[in-house]
Amino acid sequence: MLSESELTSLQTLLDSCELHRLLGLRAVGADREAGWIVLRMPFTKAASRSDGAAQFHGGAMATFADVAGDFALIARLGFGVPTIDLRIDYLRAAKPPYIQATAQIRRAGKTLGVVDITIEDAEGQVVALGRGCYSTRAG
Amino acid sequence: MLSESELTSLQTLLDSCELHRLLGLRAVGADREAGWIVLRMPFTKAASRSDGAAQFHGGAMATFADVAGDFALIARLGFGVPTIDLRIDYLRAAKPPYIQATAQIRRAGKTLGVVDITIEDAEGQVVALGRGCYSTRAG
Amino acid sequence: MLSESELTSLQTLLDSCELHRLLGLRAVGADREAGWIVLRMPFTKAASRSDGAAQFHGGAMATFADVAGDFALIARLGFGVPTIDLRIDYLRAAKPPYIQATAQIRRAGKTLGVVDITIEDAEGQVVALGRGCYSTRAG
Amino acid sequence: MLSESELTSLQTLLDSCELHRLLGLRAVGADREAGWIVLRMPFTKAASRSDGAAQFHGGAMATFADVAGDFALIARLGFGVPTIDLRIDYLRAAKPPYIQATAQIRRAGKTLGVVDITIEDAEGQVVALGRGCYSTRAG
Repeated sequence: MLSESELTSLQTLLDSCELHRLLGLRAVGADREAGWIVLRMPFTKAASRSDGAAQFHGGAMATFADVAGDFALIARLGFGVPTIDLRIDYLRAAKPPYIQATAQIRRAGKTLGVVDITIEDAEGQVVALGRGCYSTRAG
Repeated sequence: MLSESELTSLQTLLDSCELHRLLGLRAVGADREAGWIVLRMPFTKAASRSDGAAQFHGGAMATFADVAGDFALIARLGFGVPTIDLRIDYLRAAKPPYIQATAQIRRAGKTLGVVDITIEDAEGQVVALGRGCYSTRAG
Repeated sequence: MLSESELTSLQTLLDSCELHRLLGLRAVGADREAGWIVLRMPFTKAASRSDGAAQFHGGAMATFADVAGDFALIARLGFGVPTIDLRIDYLRAAKPPYIQATAQIRRAGKTLGVVDITIEDAEGQVVALGRGCYSTRAG
Repeated sequence: MLSESELTSLQTLLDSCELHRLLGLRAVGADREAGWIVLRMPFTKAASRSDGAAQFHGGAMATFADVAGDFALIARLGFGVPTIDLRIDYLRAAKPPYIQATAQIRRAGKTLGVVDITIEDAEGQVVALGRGCYSTRAG
């Protein structure tokens, strides 16, 4: 597991992007060796499907999946990695108060990384499944 | 081609969502029979990869692709459609001042729609390719 | 778990297709309630990347993933389902003597099913990950 | 356009794999500079959805898409490339007597290639869309 100060560092990196701040993304936990990270996104106006709807926007969820996959690799590798491609399947409507993404590294090679992202609602129901391919070469 | 007033209606629908307003999404043109729509997203702080970076955020681009595919079907069908799944491939860094998405319906059946989304920068370079599958059954 | 005779029925259905026979696909086990099935594909000339190569063909693996996802839903629903879309990520070279696919239903709604397919080699190493979306409406 | 002898060389490479021979894959045309290739797959017992069905098997079509994308890059680069990931969307039932795949390179960088594959039936109807990501580094 990451120490409290390592998690704070990840949160600082997350916060260095306006879109992440608008969506209120939070790093909840991570384990570098096991290769996973958990992020949370609260239901807010910015994440809503449309004004007044009590449902997350699929686009906000895709952003959330992409960032979760990215940060699973950042926690492992220590540097940011560009997304090569991203897939997301929406299984059911995602409701307030928040959704949580668990990103699990499936491969982290010299040039490519593949990460599975499972998004659950506050009751632990899986609402979406993501899978991203990232370029893992430094700099 | 959609008339000016039909395009204004689509823009009004686009604007009924905080995330779209934050990202400044604009409907540029559409053709119901031909099955395409063009949306534009300006480079802004909210769409930036990270503070100070002159590059679009992959998550904002995924949102953009999802919305473009959705609105191609809305222009055709007259009602909103849930995304079943989405894939996006990032071909090169997307730079300011804006990116433009052309969403082309490839299939619009009674239950399923498939849309191809090509995202280009202001110089006409393709920066990303999306493909989405949507549920086309009325509410 | 499926009984021996139920598994034999699935194998009979598998065998009613020349491509499956050419690739030697075998139903190894399944659990209807838990929503999973395990299939095995031996390394043969027909499944080889190219003549003389001791590596599975990516196309044969894609077929294997598609069929595994399909049969997970067949075991659950009792009838065949058309594939809407399929994704497969190749993590490492797949070597003889066989590969095994575990297909796990992630959603089985009235119109759509989503299945995750994990393909491992004989040593239990994950060599590929698939995800398929299927149409689950009866005939 | 490739010369007749270059096309023959591609066909020889195609034929050096039992699965391609079983499916009867044919190189119909290619243009190295424009980055496309056209392959054809006849309807045969090996490509059939099930015994007696007059419809192509989705798995055979996935193999066809993968190989078409691969060979578009082979025609360009001169060497075989491993598939990183593949997605295929099935738009309608694919009928005899044959299907034809046009694979168009969308990106061919130093490490990654992205190819779009459009599969049509003999009447020119699009029956499936593929998109593959390949590793383009020389062996």
